[in-house]
Amino acid sequence: MLAAVLRKSEAAMHTGLRSLRSLSSLANNGSCQILKSPPLVSLDLLEDWTCRVDQDRQETASIPNPSNQLTAALIDGKAISEEIRSKIANEVNRMKSSIGKTPGLAVILVGDRRDCQIYVRNKILACEEAGIRSEVVDLRESCSEDDILSALSNFNENPEIHGVLVQLPLPERLDEGKILSMLPLEKDVDGFHPLNMGNLALKGREPLFIPCTPKGCIELLLRSGVEIYGKRAVVIGRSNIVGLPTSLLLQRYHATVTVIHALTKNPEMLAREADIVVAAVGMPNLVRKSWLKPGAVVIDVGTYPIEDSSSDQGYRLLGDVCYGEAINVASAITPVPGGVGPMTVAMLLLNTLESAKRFYDFS
Amino acid sequence: MLAAVLRKSEAAMHTGLRSLRSLSSLANNGSCQILKSPPLVSLDLLEDWTCRVDQDRQETASIPNPSNQLTAALIDGKAISEEIRSKIANEVNRMKSSIGKTPGLAVILVGDRRDCQIYVRNKILACEEAGIRSEVVDLRESCSEDDILSALSNFNENPEIHGVLVQLPLPERLDEGKILSMLPLEKDVDGFHPLNMGNLALKGREPLFIPCTPKGCIELLLRSGVEIYGKRAVVIGRSNIVGLPTSLLLQRYHATVTVIHALTKNPEMLAREADIVVAAVGMPNLVRKSWLKPGAVVIDVGTYPIEDSSSDQGYRLLGDVCYGEAINVASAITPVPGGVGPMTVAMLLLNTLESAKRFYDFS
Repeated sequence: MLAAVLRKSEAAMHTGLRSLRSLSSLANNGSCQILKSPPLVSLDLLEDWTCRVDQDRQETASIPNPSNQLTAALIDGKAISEEIRSKIANEVNRMKSSIGKTPGLAVILVGDRRDCQIYVRNKILACEEAGIRSEVVDLRESCSEDDILSALSNFNENPEIHGVLVQLPLPERLDEGKILSMLPLEKDVDGFHPLNMGNLALKGREPLFIPCTPKGCIELLLRSGVEIYGKRAVVIGRSNIVGLPTSLLLQRYHATVTVIHALTKNPEMLAREADIVVAAVGMPNLVRKSWLKPGAVVIDVGTYPIEDSSSDQGYRLLGDVCYGEAINVASAITPVPGGVGPMTVAMLLLNTLESAKRFYDFS
Repeated sequence: MLAAVLRKSEAAMHTGLRSLRSLSSLANNGSCQILKSPPLVSLDLLEDWTCRVDQDRQETASIPNPSNQLTAALIDGKAISEEIRSKIANEVNRMKSSIGKTPGLAVILVGDRRDCQIYVRNKILACEEAGIRSEVVDLRESCSEDDILSALSNFNENPEIHGVLVQLPLPERLDEGKILSMLPLEKDVDGFHPLNMGNLALKGREPLFIPCTPKGCIELLLRSGVEIYGKRAVVIGRSNIVGLPTSLLLQRYHATVTVIHALTKNPEMLAREADIVVAAVGMPNLVRKSWLKPGAVVIDVGTYPIEDSSSDQGYRLLGDVCYGEAINVASAITPVPGGVGPMTVAMLLLNTLESAKRFYDFS
């Protein structure tokens, strides 16, 4: 079935390839005839691993097989993040009692996507629990770019706000790149500003903020005693917000990193060479046991909601990794939910705290 | 012998590892106890592939073995770059005759490193040949950071200068990162500004300038009919100016990219999996035939000068790839000299021309 899914994905990719080639020839027929290389943006393709997720793939693969011996240690992101959040709350208290100041986070939410609303609600609740002030601007799906930029500008000027984030993804008609570039650099607690990304990529530099999910992944590895230095790491997925910065960060920690994407041939074989696998695609159960080297450490960033009438919320989350299979092969693994997700929130709080400390010169 | 060289390299790395660990524990004992992760900059290590280059390694490995059948096509960077430079010269002429304006490049050279002086001289000669104005500020080894920043500032304000570069490497006592960050973004024809690098890394973005050597490598591949899309690429070396941007650029072209560095275990095995190998370490003949898959395409960025009394200049250049061996395994290869080097200069001229076109809104 996997082969069939990947074939579908490849078919979609071939369509992409055709459009890429026509763009490329367009570029070469344009005014700049000096080079063969087309503009970079014309090379962008959707990361279309598959257009359809088979239902039985979702249902069966995540149930552990009780007849197999379970070997993987659980990397408990929930417990680790709670420990971190409790330390953050202490620091926030110390800041309040020392200088009478409170870190503040502002969130801009656009539209009524259910998952975005849940993420924002979780962030706000986490702020409250840690004693961090928070504000949400809730804009309609039909809002203009100017509405967002105006909200950004208000938060930019507000000295009581030390972190600003725009909940992604934005509605497609909006220019996400342009909007993220308008984030005030010193409040970019998501770390998505291209200058932060450049400073993450470059040796000898330090970004003001490291994106929360990648930072959370590294922290999970370090706290689980996983050595990154000199290890082979494979990052599956190359999104701007997870795959790319995670690969850059793993490289900063001296892993040898390969980024697998929808156009990679034999992703399974490549992933199987890795000591550390970070899956960040958003395709449920993509990573089966055949993708993992025995003893590999697996960080599953995927969170794909599927309907589940037996759950209180009416849905449950599936990761990119087939957990039931992986626990029999990996040496350690993060669950979904309860792995990377809570760490992302904890790192957001931490980035906000650090930003406030920087602003007030408080250490 | 290679094993011995790498063992030496590893010994150097273990020293690095010790200092990394002590830095790491320092970070954890510091004021921020919330995370295990140390500051990123503390993770930086020298890319110390080897401390010593064996003389016989330099001497013997670059001579082709005439008894083997030669199979690799030569990727003639000199010829390709001449074609590009001639087109650039035509464009410069068209600009002059249409709007009476000339592109201008400024170079800041610090100290008296022979290789830097030669590189700068070549760039200036190439400018002259293409009809591009050029200026060089030649600062003493002992100059201050302020001297450099003041030169930068003058060029920044000069409307007849459309490209500014600081010849690297700078003397070690100077803060290269700080100086490069002061480059005016719209004149950063080397593309080393962190914002340019971030925009190169991020999908959906386009940097104002792509670093010259990586851009030259891609152009060599495209003009040689090498497909990058979907191929496995290995970049050996992760310098800020070549390895990193080349890996980002290959990924933009949808290769599956692995970056090999001095801490990679089994670099030979990993390189052998690649369809495209870009070697950018600066260690003569590091890449032997055992590092290459039959039919691989090899781009050799290394230029390591060794004394050679039989040469007019008193030295000759060695690449990172053992050319004499590689031509029997690869399907195509760039020579050193005459491969990537001339392309770097051509791309610098092109970036300067494009910058001037942007400034004058000339198309």
